[in-house]
Amino acid sequence: MKYQEVALAIEQSIRKQNLAQGTRLPSLSQLSTTYDASKTTMVKALAILEGRGIIFQVQGSGIFVRLKARDNYIPLTTNTGFTTDLGTHLITAKLLEFKVQKPSEDLIRDFNCDPDEDFFFLKRKRYIDKKVLCIENSYFRQKVVPYLNEEIANESIFGYLDKVLNLKVGFSDKYLQANVLTEAEAKLLELPLNAPGFYIDELFYSTTGIPFDFSQNVYHYKNAHFFLQSINK
Amino acid sequence: MKYQEVALAIEQSIRKQNLAQGTRLPSLSQLSTTYDASKTTMVKALAILEGRGIIFQVQGSGIFVRLKARDNYIPLTTNTGFTTDLGTHLITAKLLEFKVQKPSEDLIRDFNCDPDEDFFFLKRKRYIDKKVLCIENSYFRQKVVPYLNEEIANESIFGYLDKVLNLKVGFSDKYLQANVLTEAEAKLLELPLNAPGFYIDELFYSTTGIPFDFSQNVYHYKNAHFFLQSINK
Repeated sequence: MKYQEVALAIEQSIRKQNLAQGTRLPSLSQLSTTYDASKTTMVKALAILEGRGIIFQVQGSGIFVRLKARDNYIPLTTNTGFTTDLGTHLITAKLLEFKVQKPSEDLIRDFNCDPDEDFFFLKRKRYIDKKVLCIENSYFRQKVVPYLNEEIANESIFGYLDKVLNLKVGFSDKYLQANVLTEAEAKLLELPLNAPGFYIDELFYSTTGIPFDFSQNVYHYKNAHFFLQSINK
Repeated sequence: MKYQEVALAIEQSIRKQNLAQGTRLPSLSQLSTTYDASKTTMVKALAILEGRGIIFQVQGSGIFVRLKARDNYIPLTTNTGFTTDLGTHLITAKLLEFKVQKPSEDLIRDFNCDPDEDFFFLKRKRYIDKKVLCIENSYFRQKVVPYLNEEIANESIFGYLDKVLNLKVGFSDKYLQANVLTEAEAKLLELPLNAPGFYIDELFYSTTGIPFDFSQNVYHYKNAHFFLQSINK
């Protein structure tokens, strides 16, 4: 959609110019002219950027740049896969397990699906700049993702879904907690027994609102820190 | 602003009616009539709701309800303080320390402030339904929050800021990680030595973009789970 394109263009322009927090952007009407967009489109684009923590708007005062303060934190608000989110880092994956299986009761509830549907199960170890990042257990719904293989699973799966299947993430639900690693997790993450883990369960939906992937990730507590920019209601 | 009021009214209507995930809402023009809002205001309100994970929009198809799937998770996208976020639970605080101090180097950097500014430092233990929720270390900037006392610190500080000082949170930056609790933290959280902690550092800004509170919170890993709803770029 046009407003999404405009939002992305403004974001890229802010990053390219390396604008500081609090820098005032041109007015709504100036931006409309620059990006050849209607006022309605621009209002939508700015609201998206505000929701994503890229700008803030002060009534009667203007539109200002908002930027994260700390480097090397993984953003929690995007969901385009690590390979996109962490573009400046080397993200790699090692496939540990790959099979087709029926859904558990939890999956049936999360996907609101038929117990007879097939799911691809993948267990992967992921690395950031060759350091262990996380262990990932993913369940892809065959009804939406009809084909996967081991070669694809060793690369960016979301890149494949986008480019080959034209399947884009519309939104996702994330659940986060800290817990003590299991013995198997500690071994895979190369951490001592009873070390902490940062757990994120995530359910991904298509742009039409169909859930197609559930991932249970446990992160290396030293190699993975996260950030999130909130706006008020 | 009008669009924020409309967004809040639509959200409350969805909750009040207990609408299921995927329920189609009325069209943009119908909503504009219902809420007596211009199309531009409604587009803005819907973009805010989309950004906050309350609805999703499918091009050419409509506006749909989006809801969190699991109960008893603390939302990470709002920042109105626990007392508001966790309205159905009993949230209480016990003040452990209260003093006025100068900022550390980290605080000077985070607030971009003068080293001579005064800050209120508060250490609080917070409870959810009488169970330990977290230990909170907060630094309130006197330049923006001129008065606090021990009585206020035992209640909802954000409620006081809003009602008495008319100071509202515009947005916040959150930094999250898991780590091993320090001995002092474990004791305060009533957890064994070397138990994991869920750490959130948060910098709160006013609606005009001025940082006024930095909080370092460590959560009880069994009593605090979090959720977050993302949208795609």
